[in-house]
Amino acid sequence: MDLLEKRILEEGTVIGSDILKVDSFLNHQIDVSLLNEMAKEVYAHFKNSNVNKILTVEASGIGFACIVAQYFNCKVVFAKKHKGRQIAEGVYEAKVHSFTHGDDNIIKVSKKYITDKDVVLVVDDFLATGEATNGMMELLNQAGAKLAGIAIAIEKGFQEGGKQLRDQGIDLLSLAIVDSMGENGIQFRK
Amino acid sequence: MDLLEKRILEEGTVIGSDILKVDSFLNHQIDVSLLNEMAKEVYAHFKNSNVNKILTVEASGIGFACIVAQYFNCKVVFAKKHKGRQIAEGVYEAKVHSFTHGDDNIIKVSKKYITDKDVVLVVDDFLATGEATNGMMELLNQAGAKLAGIAIAIEKGFQEGGKQLRDQGIDLLSLAIVDSMGENGIQFRK
Repeated sequence: MDLLEKRILEEGTVIGSDILKVDSFLNHQIDVSLLNEMAKEVYAHFKNSNVNKILTVEASGIGFACIVAQYFNCKVVFAKKHKGRQIAEGVYEAKVHSFTHGDDNIIKVSKKYITDKDVVLVVDDFLATGEATNGMMELLNQAGAKLAGIAIAIEKGFQEGGKQLRDQGIDLLSLAIVDSMGENGIQFRK
Repeated sequence: MDLLEKRILEEGTVIGSDILKVDSFLNHQIDVSLLNEMAKEVYAHFKNSNVNKILTVEASGIGFACIVAQYFNCKVVFAKKHKGRQIAEGVYEAKVHSFTHGDDNIIKVSKKYITDKDVVLVVDDFLATGEATNGMMELLNQAGAKLAGIAIAIEKGFQEGGKQLRDQGIDLLSLAIVDSMGENGIQFRK
């Protein structure tokens, strides 16, 4: 998506070999008008997929998920993160490793809000190793819900998450795919 | 706001003397169409306040803040929470005590995204003791930003946060004010 790639080039900051900061419009300050343009692309891609619910994970996926949900006229569920090991009643849980923070989180959703009646679009701001999306897909599996597909703002194409999802035949839409980044700038997949 | 009060009565769950769970439409599952109706009320109240930015705090305020921001045609900044005690560079920080979890969080915003040019509407899902809103106001003070006012989905009117803010002359809009809750149901302020 040209508009998003342009903003990444103008405002993104690369730190080391694999951190891309887009704090100015996506995950600290949020440019809601940009999210609307992104959401239109998501809707154009998935509008015939019978999506009746959006699933994301706190915190930085929530804004994008809410704007996307307006186009599908459906509700959002955001999985909650916690560090604990306890199995709570009434929830589905999955473990998600964070390579950024070097630790594990448990993500959970209430069994009341994801069920086997749901056709779910998973939405998130970033896709890298696929830990978060795999965790959300695990929650959907436990619920018996159908996965309509996955919509991502920025995929780090040099990490394995996107490839693994596509190899499984999952309908993955990444609005911008960064194939490399570093001293020579940021290159996007065509 | 009648629509919100109705949803709280229909779907809210009171736990003990001071926990109101509204997981089905506000802070786990999110009903974006309800948020839009709520956001219209917020806009009607603050539309002449020169708001150019919305400030909230992760995680459950983000959805409401993004929908509100569409009406003001402005950006959202969400303060990030962490447990650490380090003072990071480039950010404003404030301490927020959580009575729900019995611990302290530090909330922070980048100095780049809140400045003395900004006229800020603080938005959050709940107001109880006022810890979170006081923390956000402290961030605005550090930045030299102007506070336009505070918009809250649900105020627990039996706790002191709302009264303290109104006593300071702050323009506080709470879309539903719960004056009491318990065995006799939920009573709203007229």
